[in-house]
Amino acid sequence: MNIPNWLKQRAFLTPERTALVFEQTSWTFAELYNETLKTASALRGSGIQKGGFCGILAGNRPETIFTIYALQQIGAVAILLNSRLTADEIEWQLHDAGASHLLFDAHHEQKAAAISSVPSLSIVENTVDRLFNPRDIYSLDETCSIMYTSGTTGRPKGVIQTYGNHYASATGSAFNLGIHSDDSWLCAVPLFHISGYSILMKSVIYGMEIHLFEKFDVAGVNKALKSGDVTIMSVVTAMLSVMVNELTGKYSPRFRCMLLGGGPAPAPLLEECRKNDIPVFQTYGMTETSSQIVTLSPEYALTKLGSAGKPLFPCTIKIDGENEGEILVSGPNVTPGYLHRPEANEQAFQNGWFHTGDIGRIDEAGFLYVLDRRSDLIISGGENIYPAEIESVLTEHEAVKEAGVIGVPDKKWGSVPAAFYVTERPLSSDELAAFCRGKLARYKVPAYFIQVEELPRNASNKLLRRELGAKWRDDHAHKKIDDASN
Amino acid sequence: MNIPNWLKQRAFLTPERTALVFEQTSWTFAELYNETLKTASALRGSGIQKGGFCGILAGNRPETIFTIYALQQIGAVAILLNSRLTADEIEWQLHDAGASHLLFDAHHEQKAAAISSVPSLSIVENTVDRLFNPRDIYSLDETCSIMYTSGTTGRPKGVIQTYGNHYASATGSAFNLGIHSDDSWLCAVPLFHISGYSILMKSVIYGMEIHLFEKFDVAGVNKALKSGDVTIMSVVTAMLSVMVNELTGKYSPRFRCMLLGGGPAPAPLLEECRKNDIPVFQTYGMTETSSQIVTLSPEYALTKLGSAGKPLFPCTIKIDGENEGEILVSGPNVTPGYLHRPEANEQAFQNGWFHTGDIGRIDEAGFLYVLDRRSDLIISGGENIYPAEIESVLTEHEAVKEAGVIGVPDKKWGSVPAAFYVTERPLSSDELAAFCRGKLARYKVPAYFIQVEELPRNASNKLLRRELGAKWRDDHAHKKIDDASN
Repeated sequence: MNIPNWLKQRAFLTPERTALVFEQTSWTFAELYNETLKTASALRGSGIQKGGFCGILAGNRPETIFTIYALQQIGAVAILLNSRLTADEIEWQLHDAGASHLLFDAHHEQKAAAISSVPSLSIVENTVDRLFNPRDIYSLDETCSIMYTSGTTGRPKGVIQTYGNHYASATGSAFNLGIHSDDSWLCAVPLFHISGYSILMKSVIYGMEIHLFEKFDVAGVNKALKSGDVTIMSVVTAMLSVMVNELTGKYSPRFRCMLLGGGPAPAPLLEECRKNDIPVFQTYGMTETSSQIVTLSPEYALTKLGSAGKPLFPCTIKIDGENEGEILVSGPNVTPGYLHRPEANEQAFQNGWFHTGDIGRIDEAGFLYVLDRRSDLIISGGENIYPAEIESVLTEHEAVKEAGVIGVPDKKWGSVPAAFYVTERPLSSDELAAFCRGKLARYKVPAYFIQVEELPRNASNKLLRRELGAKWRDDHAHKKIDDASN
Repeated sequence: MNIPNWLKQRAFLTPERTALVFEQTSWTFAELYNETLKTASALRGSGIQKGGFCGILAGNRPETIFTIYALQQIGAVAILLNSRLTADEIEWQLHDAGASHLLFDAHHEQKAAAISSVPSLSIVENTVDRLFNPRDIYSLDETCSIMYTSGTTGRPKGVIQTYGNHYASATGSAFNLGIHSDDSWLCAVPLFHISGYSILMKSVIYGMEIHLFEKFDVAGVNKALKSGDVTIMSVVTAMLSVMVNELTGKYSPRFRCMLLGGGPAPAPLLEECRKNDIPVFQTYGMTETSSQIVTLSPEYALTKLGSAGKPLFPCTIKIDGENEGEILVSGPNVTPGYLHRPEANEQAFQNGWFHTGDIGRIDEAGFLYVLDRRSDLIISGGENIYPAEIESVLTEHEAVKEAGVIGVPDKKWGSVPAAFYVTERPLSSDELAAFCRGKLARYKVPAYFIQVEELPRNASNKLLRRELGAKWRDDHAHKKIDDASN
């Protein structure tokens, strides 16, 4: 099925509407289209062809947006490269996708210079004021973008995102969050992630303004939200947390949606948001679903604590199992598969369902609770144990600041949970074990409690359980608690 | 492609949201779904099958909505029958579609009784509190509804509307008009027309409230719009005109969209709306496009006077000709064709374009001007004359309430325009002719002026020019004005 070329159609329908705001400059859709055509003209001149694959290694800047749209005009596929990758990792992804070119911006010149297997082009120099005749239509089945994700094992896989996937994502999100004529979506998440890229697609499909930030600058973001210039923003927990901490006063009443991805938010943060009248929409999604697939509206934020909500209108979710189990999803926003990975696709797609690898449960009203990533699953004596559940219990203890749980080897049970915890005051393992026994089935109570000064977290503040595993292996003096309990 | 059963999904996602308001009663989506399942259970019990065709002869009442949705649950196709049709005409349509049943409400019992070729069932008695297991998914390619339209010649043709057509229509409209969480759409247009039926589809897809009126009751409608209970309303010019005439005070600021279909609106009416802060969205659409396909936003209402606007995001329009010509449309909301009419389909669909039969032009900025329906075109001495243009001039006269123009036979010119008009005070033909001469090229000035008490209009208040033709032929004492003028 065909659809008019999105940017061309948008520039035709609402040429004078603002498309993009970056620092002190703004572009209307007509201007954005014009910049895009100049970029497309240059890229075509450099040999980029319809159907070709091009890596993009660039930051959150206007020229990156022109380049992303320019590839759509040509009909080339964009491989969105995480700018934190090493040159070797980038080279591996470009090779895996069969890329013809690497496009980079001024900030990634050095890294691009280290890549020799594929010709690279600077997107800053590459605009030509020359006639470019863009295509009139996109096919919804056509591949638009590729983003690499790491699975539980092995090398990263390239997720195919079609035009139809992005269109369905924008549509489903609209039926969930609504569309207002004065909407402006603040994008401080990376454009190379689906969280950022999907904002671009919504912008052209809805005719909506984007407020682009090069970096997540807390003061600048809070200022924009207070000014009323912005109505929607995409965040992860760590971003929201620091925004709320540094907030003085309140956001503008025009600000209507804080779209919160990247895992369940802690109750105290949600409570803080409620106090500050910040409308938090918790969401669950992934690269393979082209952004959100499940969203919780603010009215349920505190009554359905820990839930990611219900599916978008065109989507369906189910649990593979009786009560808890792997989360399966289906819908027109779900990827048709991984690039060049027939075996992984055979595993991941069964009877029309995509197997997310995440573990969850759905309550009687249909709300999804994401319990954990399968890779962290602890199987102990044939029983499944989910670290997140135990961590949640541990942090209920008034003295526990944060906690991380992993599975460690055990002669009798195969694997048992071990808890790492940070406290505000001295707290004995025995006391904490007793506390857990009152809250958890015996087999879930950690066999080990290790007090630490802090937990290992990544840049988005996500707990790195793998590093807890390394910590465990480095330290041999573990004292097992109450062996009979398992 | 499949999509979750709309009403089932909606009742699952937002069970407690209000779906329908009628007089003093309202239904949540959960309640609406429950009523629908009871109706579906009864209809299935009466032998209505998946894939079967059922006529619906019913007014704008809740049980009609339950019936429409119930057929979707079963997977039967609804033939929406215009309630003004004679029993013979209904019988013809039911036969043409191959209907298995006729469903009627209390107000149409007598007419239904006159139809013997197909078993008929009252929808009021037909609800059963019995388990009904609705289907989980719709196929977007599947036929959802059939509506008969009269073409320029011959018998009416049944327009096939698929689930995909209705979904694309709701989507395109959302990207144009926006979606607000507090939206409530007032429906006082017939549910058997696409103008009304499409509101139902939007309601389940968006999760939006409908405010249903059995009849177009001006006072009641104005009250609803002033109260703030309603944010959007679909109207045709004649409805809007009387609403504005009877309006005292202003509509609530919550009222955000007056969706005006059924032909270009006269300038004085638009000016009156502007003065009253009524946000008019003029639109062009038809049964074959499953509702709007072109819409003009209020900021252009007066600067692009007479234009229907630009296409919806997923749609394209073009003119078959150099400057003026037949309007061709394409998009996912366009019908796949007429039921059992291979020849008509071959004519109407060429190279992916649907030939509307309407005449229009597109200005340099891309705005569509619908000049007239081809069937109403008056060709006079080789010149094309469009009745709508003359009507627009006539209603500019302060004493003219409404006007209708047709072509009548003329020995010299082949055809000449004749004007029928309704006035507030006595107004002579000569005075009106002189007024027109100041505004129109001579060949466009009507040769006849016939004062009447009212104009013939259909259920959606659309002018029936054909009946003016019959009126003309029944009355022989026409006095031609200023013969030399042509």
